[in-house]
Amino acid sequence: MIYLDHCATTRPYSEVVTAVSTATAADFWNPSSMYRPAKALDRRRQAALQSLASLLGCQAEELIQTSCATESTNMALKGLFARYGKRLDRIICCASDHDATLATCDYLATHGADIIRLKPRADGRIDPADLVDALNDRTLLVSILHVNNETGVVQDLETLVPLIREHAPKAFIHGDLVQSWSRIRFSLRRLDLDLASFSAHKIHGPKGVGLLYRKAKVLPDPLIHGGGQQKGWRSGTDNWPLLHGMQIAAEIQAESFVQRKAKVNAHRAYLSKELTKLAAVFNFSDTVAEICSVSFPGLRGETILHMLEEEEIYLSTASACQTGSGKVSHVLQACGVPLDRAQGTLRISLDALNTEAELEYLVQTLKAKLEQLRQWQS
Amino acid sequence: MIYLDHCATTRPYSEVVTAVSTATAADFWNPSSMYRPAKALDRRRQAALQSLASLLGCQAEELIQTSCATESTNMALKGLFARYGKRLDRIICCASDHDATLATCDYLATHGADIIRLKPRADGRIDPADLVDALNDRTLLVSILHVNNETGVVQDLETLVPLIREHAPKAFIHGDLVQSWSRIRFSLRRLDLDLASFSAHKIHGPKGVGLLYRKAKVLPDPLIHGGGQQKGWRSGTDNWPLLHGMQIAAEIQAESFVQRKAKVNAHRAYLSKELTKLAAVFNFSDTVAEICSVSFPGLRGETILHMLEEEEIYLSTASACQTGSGKVSHVLQACGVPLDRAQGTLRISLDALNTEAELEYLVQTLKAKLEQLRQWQS
Repeated sequence: MIYLDHCATTRPYSEVVTAVSTATAADFWNPSSMYRPAKALDRRRQAALQSLASLLGCQAEELIQTSCATESTNMALKGLFARYGKRLDRIICCASDHDATLATCDYLATHGADIIRLKPRADGRIDPADLVDALNDRTLLVSILHVNNETGVVQDLETLVPLIREHAPKAFIHGDLVQSWSRIRFSLRRLDLDLASFSAHKIHGPKGVGLLYRKAKVLPDPLIHGGGQQKGWRSGTDNWPLLHGMQIAAEIQAESFVQRKAKVNAHRAYLSKELTKLAAVFNFSDTVAEICSVSFPGLRGETILHMLEEEEIYLSTASACQTGSGKVSHVLQACGVPLDRAQGTLRISLDALNTEAELEYLVQTLKAKLEQLRQWQS
Repeated sequence: MIYLDHCATTRPYSEVVTAVSTATAADFWNPSSMYRPAKALDRRRQAALQSLASLLGCQAEELIQTSCATESTNMALKGLFARYGKRLDRIICCASDHDATLATCDYLATHGADIIRLKPRADGRIDPADLVDALNDRTLLVSILHVNNETGVVQDLETLVPLIREHAPKAFIHGDLVQSWSRIRFSLRRLDLDLASFSAHKIHGPKGVGLLYRKAKVLPDPLIHGGGQQKGWRSGTDNWPLLHGMQIAAEIQAESFVQRKAKVNAHRAYLSKELTKLAAVFNFSDTVAEICSVSFPGLRGETILHMLEEEEIYLSTASACQTGSGKVSHVLQACGVPLDRAQGTLRISLDALNTEAELEYLVQTLKAKLEQLRQWQS
């Protein structure tokens, strides 16, 4: 089995499986309880958040444990709109954003938000001039997808964030950092975001846990009210097993960063060379090495996907959230990729766990399948 | 170690730990992906929901997988208010409800909801006449805590639900069934609720997963928007490992219902007899056997709790969510339990996993500690 769909989800590290399993069995206490074993667990929670904070470049108090990045993004957008929406009603996003942002914006539009969807340039990036044009004195929030989950294109936060600070000093900035976590080195402090969303299962952690970073003075309304856990920011019984799993995954990813990147860069260079020989077109340059949006013009991505799965090679055409909808990816459409090329697109998302042999097998198999397909079509 | 705090959380069954662990390691696919192993996992998801639905007495399509019961309750209340709040703005709850309901109601009050908190009778039950008085033609929702998490008192849904249907036919009814799941036999269809919230970790399942039951024609706005998973009701990558863990826990609980109840009933009878000898007062009658709210007038519950934890006996004074707040339980206050008795209250929450020997040890230890305490005080 060759798994090349790491943007959809990742296989948890064995250390993560062990950590979650041990914690589920043994550390089942409710960390809010008053007796010692529960209080000890609560201290381990604090230590885990401390570790995550130091990896992300922020304070532990600025991290809220959520059930997933989608929840984090919902809390950021809805929480700010609920609190400040009467005075500041404009929310700026980008048409190639993840559905967690776009669907939340659509919902807020029905509650009076003034949603501006920037159209990205053909290279997938936000045009700074378009962003400045969209900013006004009623701008509540700009939400930016750091690394696009379908194209791998990296938004230039170093340029965009200062522009927002300059032209709309009251606006908050939310970063969807799901696909950049552990693929790009960053410090939240230095990025100067107000909020940011993270998911564990995209970095070999468990499903069901994410983070919302919230800079100390940024006060969105909570999305989930109740028993007042996490200082009231996110109620619901504290989930130690999944937090611990996320911590272990993040620590392994941080320790292995240099080796992982070297390996993935080599994978990407190999694919760039070999797939080009097969008449594939890389839809975007300037992407993270892990995410390849490659098009086989004149062919259907879905057909190639199913031919590859016969050989137990698993990849996707677009975001997993959109599969089966039969529609062309909204991301490729937003970037102006011509229909013919969009329909022929595969998303190959690489990981350091992939081996050279796997990629060689992918290339050979793809070559054979493409020949077959092109023969059938001629 | 003697664990008597099963209302706070439970130790997952070993079968649950194995199921979650195996699924985390092996079944890591994103069920929304287009290839076979992912689609096979999606079918297992449907089968698990089917199993849960048949245990709960509803249709699989009526169940939404959430991250916890607090999320479920938030979605029920906020989702209905967001959709219908302009026409129907009254929400009726009870002052002894769980904070998931009360804090959500407080929040909705700041957004224009007309919140009525019924005061329960001294026996912990809602007075049907008070409920009828509170119903008007702008009533959106009545939320009822089926089994109270601190007192064990069971609300008489068979009486209350038909009254609501009669006097406020437009009103929806939400049940917080967290503590009744697997302690009382019920069928959602027969209870005639519109929405109901459930949590896995209270029935020996994993933390991080719950359910919202939503009768087919009941249409709250989703709380979490995004990729459109679960037919748009709850976005975020589908979490198979935790759903599977919840399924296994619920199946074990259903199969063992008769034996479990017999055991817990015997435990409760034993405690009633023995604790009364120690001058303890049971604050409520007509409760589920599992939850004992017992008071030692003139003493402090917190002191007894810490003396017991020295002997590795773990229980609580009130809901885990409220511990450490230093406040007297809002539940006991709402029921009019006198301050002196409320301050001297312990919540002992039993489970079929507890043994007779454990309860004997509890009684002996408690006897010794109480003598010590009363000596100090005299």
